[in-house]
Amino acid sequence: MNTPEADKKVAEQVANLIQPIRDDLLSGAAEIALRAITVFQSVLSGDQISPEQVKSNLTYTAKSLIDAQPAMAPLFHLGNDVLLAIENAQTVEEIRNRCDTALAKFEKMLCASASTIADIAYDLIDPGELIFAYSFSSTVVSALLNARARGRFFRVVCTEARPSMEGRKLASRLASGGIEVIHTFDNAMGLVLGNCSAAFMGCDCIARPGVVNKVGSWMLAIACRELNVPLYALSGTEKFVTDERLFEFEKHERPGVEVWDNTPKGVAVLNQQFDLVPFNLLTGLVTEKGILKESDIEPYVSNFSVHRSLTLASI
Amino acid sequence: MNTPEADKKVAEQVANLIQPIRDDLLSGAAEIALRAITVFQSVLSGDQISPEQVKSNLTYTAKSLIDAQPAMAPLFHLGNDVLLAIENAQTVEEIRNRCDTALAKFEKMLCASASTIADIAYDLIDPGELIFAYSFSSTVVSALLNARARGRFFRVVCTEARPSMEGRKLASRLASGGIEVIHTFDNAMGLVLGNCSAAFMGCDCIARPGVVNKVGSWMLAIACRELNVPLYALSGTEKFVTDERLFEFEKHERPGVEVWDNTPKGVAVLNQQFDLVPFNLLTGLVTEKGILKESDIEPYVSNFSVHRSLTLASI
Repeated sequence: MNTPEADKKVAEQVANLIQPIRDDLLSGAAEIALRAITVFQSVLSGDQISPEQVKSNLTYTAKSLIDAQPAMAPLFHLGNDVLLAIENAQTVEEIRNRCDTALAKFEKMLCASASTIADIAYDLIDPGELIFAYSFSSTVVSALLNARARGRFFRVVCTEARPSMEGRKLASRLASGGIEVIHTFDNAMGLVLGNCSAAFMGCDCIARPGVVNKVGSWMLAIACRELNVPLYALSGTEKFVTDERLFEFEKHERPGVEVWDNTPKGVAVLNQQFDLVPFNLLTGLVTEKGILKESDIEPYVSNFSVHRSLTLASI
Repeated sequence: MNTPEADKKVAEQVANLIQPIRDDLLSGAAEIALRAITVFQSVLSGDQISPEQVKSNLTYTAKSLIDAQPAMAPLFHLGNDVLLAIENAQTVEEIRNRCDTALAKFEKMLCASASTIADIAYDLIDPGELIFAYSFSSTVVSALLNARARGRFFRVVCTEARPSMEGRKLASRLASGGIEVIHTFDNAMGLVLGNCSAAFMGCDCIARPGVVNKVGSWMLAIACRELNVPLYALSGTEKFVTDERLFEFEKHERPGVEVWDNTPKGVAVLNQQFDLVPFNLLTGLVTEKGILKESDIEPYVSNFSVHRSLTLASI
């Protein structure tokens, strides 16, 4: 983060609001974007002296959210949409209205996307079959629960997703929704995948090189190819970013103690959160616009403007 | 286990001696075989009334050890060697002598194998490079420590090997021996393997279909092939078994609570310990007889007699 444009009080407020998002290793990108909307709403509801001050506070908030979870494309788009919306607003009142409208539109889009994706994914879940699901993605959860609610019977097998174990959150959520779940550890993927009719994963961001998701997705992808299991990434098109921003995920190294808390002398711990699955390892990208192949993605990678405060050079 | 041939007292003694071996999820097969030698020695040192009773006690011990770790070929061979050695002995004294000789020969063979394998593996460790090592194998540890002791500088990257985390034991052992270690979790294999010049694993048993080792070895193997990293299994030829015995590893399912101790309702936990790496995924099998390819293994799979009490049909 560069020097804060916001004053010290706002900087503190934003830091406090964002800390839980920064520390959240269990939620998917779409779910976190919904919570980021409330962060903008809180900042917006504070005392605002001048239009410049409000704009500066919102810019600071957008940058801080992106910095908190650099791999999560929806946080970038949410901030970008807000900043583009308020750019030419003249009064505090006008900024508030435009920001509120942008936030509401984004929230509606996220929910509509998840619902459309769930309907498309329904046809990928064969009755009576076993489906593999990796890590935690609210889009994947809603697709599976939607299929179950529509009367489709199937079982799900999922793994822990070390080190933060969000696979347990997935297992619990699906089991509460009446889906029979088989759970194992990540290195046992090879033992269970061969019995699955399809594998689903969420994703954090997408660009030409492929799809970024929780580390382990690449291992899942090569195992799926080896065992002829179709692998689908379920994701709204709000996950598309520019190619250069895709590699921001590499910044997201977490403390080694989250992996091993009393490491002996001479042992360094690597705790990277994300990896990249090239398109050629994916059977399809299930979006609200349909199931996309690599050849379909060009318009989505290049069809958005980036606010000048959020270009990579400016951060 | 069928009805014990041994009396109740001996059955209890054997059960107590073997329990730590049954519960050991952190040691490799060669290491456990060394401890099994002491189990035979304890049984042999007890009060022995008749030659038939001694033979019966030793047969019971051999079967119990195999049952405790059905994937670990050295336990089978140790028991088999003992039973074949004592088969035609007439007196208690003669049985004791022949058994002692068989145990000493087995121990000497294990140590000599490890030492020869270490010398062969030395040439597979390029100076200054990064070597991947999976799970815990005393053969791999001695190869790496031997290379370090001979003045070769290299770093090792290893992963946890969930659920029992014997990768931490590996990391600690190597670091104590002056090797710089990088440690991460199993699903991050794909992030580190690409930087490695070779990958090493141990093994529990070998037959025509391939090599059985800690679950996750198959994932490692397909990742190595994808990233063009040569993968070697380091193992003495005492790991060879008949094809039918190879699949005994599938029996070794452990309690689900070792993976997740408060599983929610509707979630079943799968805790399999081993998987099978087909020969076509291995660059070579480093044994005391040299680096073997699939085409070299035939003599080793078929060159041993199985005592009648240890055929699969009899257990």
